Amino acid sequence: MGETLYQIGESELLHRLARFAPTGQFDDDTARIYTGGKDLLINTDVLVEGIHFCKDTTTAKDIGWRCVAANISDLAASGVDKILGITVGLIAPSDTPWDWVEEVYTGIEEALKQFGGELLGGDCSQGEQRLLAITALGTVGPARLHRSHALPGDSLVVSGPHGLSRLGLALLLCEPQVQAVQLPEKLKQAAIDAHQHPQPSLKALRSLEACKPKELAWRAGGTDSSDGLLEAVKNLCKSSNCRAIIDPTSLPRASEWPLGSPWDNWCLNGGEDFELVLSLPPKWATAWLNAYPSSQAIGVMEMGPAQVLWTDNREEVNSSPDFQHFQQ
Amino acid sequence: MGETLYQIGESELLHRLARFAPTGQFDDDTARIYTGGKDLLINTDVLVEGIHFCKDTTTAKDIGWRCVAANISDLAASGVDKILGITVGLIAPSDTPWDWVEEVYTGIEEALKQFGGELLGGDCSQGEQRLLAITALGTVGPARLHRSHALPGDSLVVSGPHGLSRLGLALLLCEPQVQAVQLPEKLKQAAIDAHQHPQPSLKALRSLEACKPKELAWRAGGTDSSDGLLEAVKNLCKSSNCRAIIDPTSLPRASEWPLGSPWDNWCLNGGEDFELVLSLPPKWATAWLNAYPSSQAIGVMEMGPAQVLWTDNREEVNSSPDFQHFQQ
Repeated sequence: MGETLYQIGESELLHRLARFAPTGQFDDDTARIYTGGKDLLINTDVLVEGIHFCKDTTTAKDIGWRCVAANISDLAASGVDKILGITVGLIAPSDTPWDWVEEVYTGIEEALKQFGGELLGGDCSQGEQRLLAITALGTVGPARLHRSHALPGDSLVVSGPHGLSRLGLALLLCEPQVQAVQLPEKLKQAAIDAHQHPQPSLKALRSLEACKPKELAWRAGGTDSSDGLLEAVKNLCKSSNCRAIIDPTSLPRASEWPLGSPWDNWCLNGGEDFELVLSLPPKWATAWLNAYPSSQAIGVMEMGPAQVLWTDNREEVNSSPDFQHFQQ
Repeated sequence: MGETLYQIGESELLHRLARFAPTGQFDDDTARIYTGGKDLLINTDVLVEGIHFCKDTTTAKDIGWRCVAANISDLAASGVDKILGITVGLIAPSDTPWDWVEEVYTGIEEALKQFGGELLGGDCSQGEQRLLAITALGTVGPARLHRSHALPGDSLVVSGPHGLSRLGLALLLCEPQVQAVQLPEKLKQAAIDAHQHPQPSLKALRSLEACKPKELAWRAGGTDSSDGLLEAVKNLCKSSNCRAIIDPTSLPRASEWPLGSPWDNWCLNGGEDFELVLSLPPKWATAWLNAYPSSQAIGVMEMGPAQVLWTDNREEVNSSPDFQHFQQ
């Protein structure tokens, strides 16, 4: 199975990883970040084998890609201008093959090539379980999307369909729910792609910036739906102290997505969708809905306690999360 | 044993951690970093239970402190001006008590209070083993110490004694080597302090900056000795393509440190010393040796291949590392 990390040792391992950081950020105790005088956005995400990824459904290269995409999704949901780079903390057991590590970093490199930024160094250590801790940095753009910036009267809009990543996982694991229905091939492929090769919403953000009506300020509530659509809307409500009203007929379902309650649950609570969930002044929302094809209005924000209600019966939207990060 | 992380859940856990980040950096997908227009230094370190710390020798509060200190040591060894803050990726099994997490963050808070900077958010997840991945950020100061900036003709100087942390660990674990000798109480206490409550060399850096002779440029080779003194000198040699000659009578031993080969080995290879190891123009070195009490000259840099030799017999200084991060 090739060389293991034990055979290579920590010092040689870091030396080998240096080729993924062409500007030499591994050659010193720290990396220098050229800020161009701008303020930065920073985010740290951890991805743990068995919790956030598993080798049956995700290749090593896709794990690397996904870690970068997940972090950059958070930067996008805060209004990042330019991605500067990431640092990587890698933990793996001593018997992990070097090939696996190399593939993970190849996936990281590909993602950075696509989204921008460079590898700004990091650290490696032995541990019982494979995991990655990634910190991403970017400069602040004009629209500082923030969870606490939603206001009553705003439209609630998203950058794309939800639940695809969860469906992709179900297909890869051959879960009973997907065995029982006939799904179009195109939907299946989109779902597996969404799970294995997620895309952060940088294009959606650029389009949002481009279509802001001039008379409006750069004020928008925003987050990403990495923990699911409902969790994202709840977080906007909590931080902004508003109530969200969402329309069951306007759930952001993918094309040919089956109807019915288990499928709506994946749309609301599937998680790892990496779409923008925004609370916008109605004029800005309308402009964006016209400009960005996959965007969709799902409801409105109003005065009231931090809760999420259905438009029709004014009942609370139930969360039945499909995943739980601390398990017994 | 109080509430566990499983009982609390991820969302409530992050909510509880928010009180350690008084400027609200946990309330959004990212934290904003005010750079004051300066370029930054960044560093990521991972600390794993059983490898970098163990509960028999380090309290939860000391683990938090130590993680921050280790990261800031890297920033200090790169010439940091001001510490801006850290992000924390925390992994722990579901049955971990909340009290443990709270104590770790209390240690982090105390360290940030002493060294500067704030908690810039982070992430938490379940995992099989307790570990912390910390990313630290600071602004670049005038002396950008870099491993590759050493030059032949430089003096090799360190900011303080080496081996204390390793002796502290031996005392805490009652290792045979420390049972066989009578050590002064003061040395024992200093060693245990160095192990449990390490101090990054920020004062040493400030003193180094203050005593630079005006006619010299801000050029200095530098690293920290977190992986041991010899490893630090080797890294300077490798990155700067020089040879180091070190004097066995000038090893940076602590006061009343026993003589002899096992003790010299801890001084050279004990690790986790967090002192500055610098390659300086002789005039700057002399000024610093006069200005900073615990600093010490240990040798010189000369032209030649990247190796470390003893002054007396010109033989290679052997590394027999006392720890290895990838173990079988």
